[in-house]
Amino acid sequence: MAQQIGIPKGTRDFGPDVMQKREYIFDTIKQVFKLHGYQSLETPSMENLTTLLGKYGDEGDKLLFRVLNSGDFLSSTPAQLLEQPIDHKKLSPHISEKGLRYDLTVPFARYVVMNRNEIQFPFKRYQIQPVWRADRPQKGRYREFYQCDVDVIGSTSMLNEFDLIQILDAVFSKLKLNVTVHINNRKILDGILQSFNLENKMTEVAIAIDKLDKAGIDNVLNELAEKGIPVDVAPKLMEFVSMKDQPEKVLEKIRPLVGNTVSGAAGIEELAELAGYIKESALNISVVYDLSLARGLDYYTGAIFEVKANDVQMGSICGGGRYDNLTAFFGLPDMSGVGISFGADRIYDVMNELELFPAELTSSTKILFLNFGKTEAMYVFPLLQQLRKQGVSAELYPEQDKIKKQMNYANKKNIPYVVMAGEEEVKNSNLTLKNMENGDQKTLVKEELIKELTN
Amino acid sequence: MAQQIGIPKGTRDFGPDVMQKREYIFDTIKQVFKLHGYQSLETPSMENLTTLLGKYGDEGDKLLFRVLNSGDFLSSTPAQLLEQPIDHKKLSPHISEKGLRYDLTVPFARYVVMNRNEIQFPFKRYQIQPVWRADRPQKGRYREFYQCDVDVIGSTSMLNEFDLIQILDAVFSKLKLNVTVHINNRKILDGILQSFNLENKMTEVAIAIDKLDKAGIDNVLNELAEKGIPVDVAPKLMEFVSMKDQPEKVLEKIRPLVGNTVSGAAGIEELAELAGYIKESALNISVVYDLSLARGLDYYTGAIFEVKANDVQMGSICGGGRYDNLTAFFGLPDMSGVGISFGADRIYDVMNELELFPAELTSSTKILFLNFGKTEAMYVFPLLQQLRKQGVSAELYPEQDKIKKQMNYANKKNIPYVVMAGEEEVKNSNLTLKNMENGDQKTLVKEELIKELTN
Repeated sequence: MAQQIGIPKGTRDFGPDVMQKREYIFDTIKQVFKLHGYQSLETPSMENLTTLLGKYGDEGDKLLFRVLNSGDFLSSTPAQLLEQPIDHKKLSPHISEKGLRYDLTVPFARYVVMNRNEIQFPFKRYQIQPVWRADRPQKGRYREFYQCDVDVIGSTSMLNEFDLIQILDAVFSKLKLNVTVHINNRKILDGILQSFNLENKMTEVAIAIDKLDKAGIDNVLNELAEKGIPVDVAPKLMEFVSMKDQPEKVLEKIRPLVGNTVSGAAGIEELAELAGYIKESALNISVVYDLSLARGLDYYTGAIFEVKANDVQMGSICGGGRYDNLTAFFGLPDMSGVGISFGADRIYDVMNELELFPAELTSSTKILFLNFGKTEAMYVFPLLQQLRKQGVSAELYPEQDKIKKQMNYANKKNIPYVVMAGEEEVKNSNLTLKNMENGDQKTLVKEELIKELTN
Repeated sequence: MAQQIGIPKGTRDFGPDVMQKREYIFDTIKQVFKLHGYQSLETPSMENLTTLLGKYGDEGDKLLFRVLNSGDFLSSTPAQLLEQPIDHKKLSPHISEKGLRYDLTVPFARYVVMNRNEIQFPFKRYQIQPVWRADRPQKGRYREFYQCDVDVIGSTSMLNEFDLIQILDAVFSKLKLNVTVHINNRKILDGILQSFNLENKMTEVAIAIDKLDKAGIDNVLNELAEKGIPVDVAPKLMEFVSMKDQPEKVLEKIRPLVGNTVSGAAGIEELAELAGYIKESALNISVVYDLSLARGLDYYTGAIFEVKANDVQMGSICGGGRYDNLTAFFGLPDMSGVGISFGADRIYDVMNELELFPAELTSSTKILFLNFGKTEAMYVFPLLQQLRKQGVSAELYPEQDKIKKQMNYANKKNIPYVVMAGEEEVKNSNLTLKNMENGDQKTLVKEELIKELTN
């Protein structure tokens, strides 16, 4: 009896056409990570809930997928918790001890702390794995999606920030995607607030800043007033935090304001060093210092990055920054790191919209040998083997179907070449090669065919 | 406050050294799949439990990891189910609707049925993703592990079975792993039982066969007697099913016995066709027809495959076969398929034990530029960029640490070349290149260095 079939809300199957494009993105990113000396890490899909809880705020805790304990999951639950009405929040920790990974940063921090004695610091690692969030699914937001993270931990040098910018440059140049990297620094934001005597209002200001693009300056000023920011200070404050310009120009403008605060001076020094490196290198991507970039600020302590596509309206496709305290959660303080995360799903959407995927991605097989029967099949076996040995993707149609059907298969799979080797060809020890794009057909001996296809 | 840290039982972190080796296996397998025209598919980690339950037997159902519903997971549970004592088996379906993927075959079947109108048949797909089983962890058995599946569905031709054998040959040749492919056919087993009038004893015989290697013939004969197989028939039966030889020899011996049964004749024809193809091709791997190969028999209807390493004692590292009814679960009958699954974790263990991983896998970065300060760093920026453009993995040590510490970093990461570009080199517009293996050191200009490293 057939049953209803489907997949869970917010998840996706990736068929061959989509997979080829996705793998093109992953392979490009991975290749660049490796060229910069980063090494691969993979962590389990499930983590203990003690590792995950409390790291992503209350909202994040709610979005964790929890895995039911195996077997009789109620057996270790205290009896009084099972008296009605049962409180699901109190019951949950007793019936579920594991959760699905919510991001790659917390598992990375957990790994570093667990393996700190074996790791060679500075530790440069990349990690490309799916994460899961029980968020309400909507356009561009999924319950299972991939993150591609690259981090270096155990070094405070700004050369690391610069390395990440070079990685962004290389990845997006290879993908032919025009982007702008927005850079800010938490210390400069701290300095600006200090100079306005608002150091205890960071959260409020950060939330307001994040709304600037969508809500507009007037609404933000109203909100700041409600939050207790003096109305004579707010416009001046917003003038600074909404600054978005070339590194040198931004530094010039903020130096008089924040240069005297401890945080501000440190932030200016960091940004200036980074600006110096950027100036010395020929980057393809645009870089702006954008003091409105806050990214929630939760764990960032220094540089903050965000990447936006220039030609499509689509939030951030990449983000990250420096964090000084991430491993402290797990008992290892003073381990500064900096990293960025590529949002592969959004990069895919942008590239799809702009039709940036190379045309050759649509075909997987280069040559299809039509099937004219067993004798003819055996005639082409050695040729198939030789082509594959030389890196040419080749297949033999498995059934002796009508030629029209076999040709249709080649067309649907976008296979550019078809070989016909029927009774006649076997007799004459040759083959007929058909170019599926222009319809050209020619008769060749095996060696000529191999030469033609491996050129 | 630091908390205790760890990862769930039966799961693993894969650090850089292990990941390089694992990726070598995955990349090799994937490359061969592609050369044979198979296309990539990925399905969600979570499937609806209705998709998974009942597909793996009662034991399999127990081993599924179930995901707790989000939010108030008790809200849709009928009140009487929450009355004490609560039956966890009855409660479970109300608080959990999704489970983690248990294998790649059932999701594949589900995908094929859901997308049957878009798929071009015969559909050749590969899928490399983790699966999860709440099994008791032990050596070589994990709760999260990868499967690498390759299947073709929608074609009954034995050319598909042959294609899979060629894939096995190519993969294990590339990995330099000596293996033997064991081949059997469900139809021949059916034929043998028919000819002994034991067609209703297939399950008992299959279970007994599986024990042959470990328990020995006497124990198996005892068991067969207990199961009601006549004592005069059992030894004769076992003589046939324990046959393990070259294809031609096995066929010769069983033809008189099973050639007259419908199943047996069909099985002989299939095996003979496959033997013909194998004979025509120069395979590196050994192939034996092994009539004791049963693999549980649950959904196999034709050919059955299993691969064992020749030089290490380690169960099967690959297995598969033909199934005629897999998509029938989801309402699509008569869709025959055949496939094999590579056990990447076991292949890793075997290769590790035999030290078959190429030496170059232990290093990820080819060249490390030592850090002598900001000016010197900027001096090497263009060179780093150029090397990476030419595919050379290069990094600049981010901190101006003592040279000894930087050298130590290079050693620990197995980096074969180190460049020193200090004050002197900057002044003279050259660089000092040190070969870390033999200690050789020479002074070069930039162009010479690039030439040296890209040769």
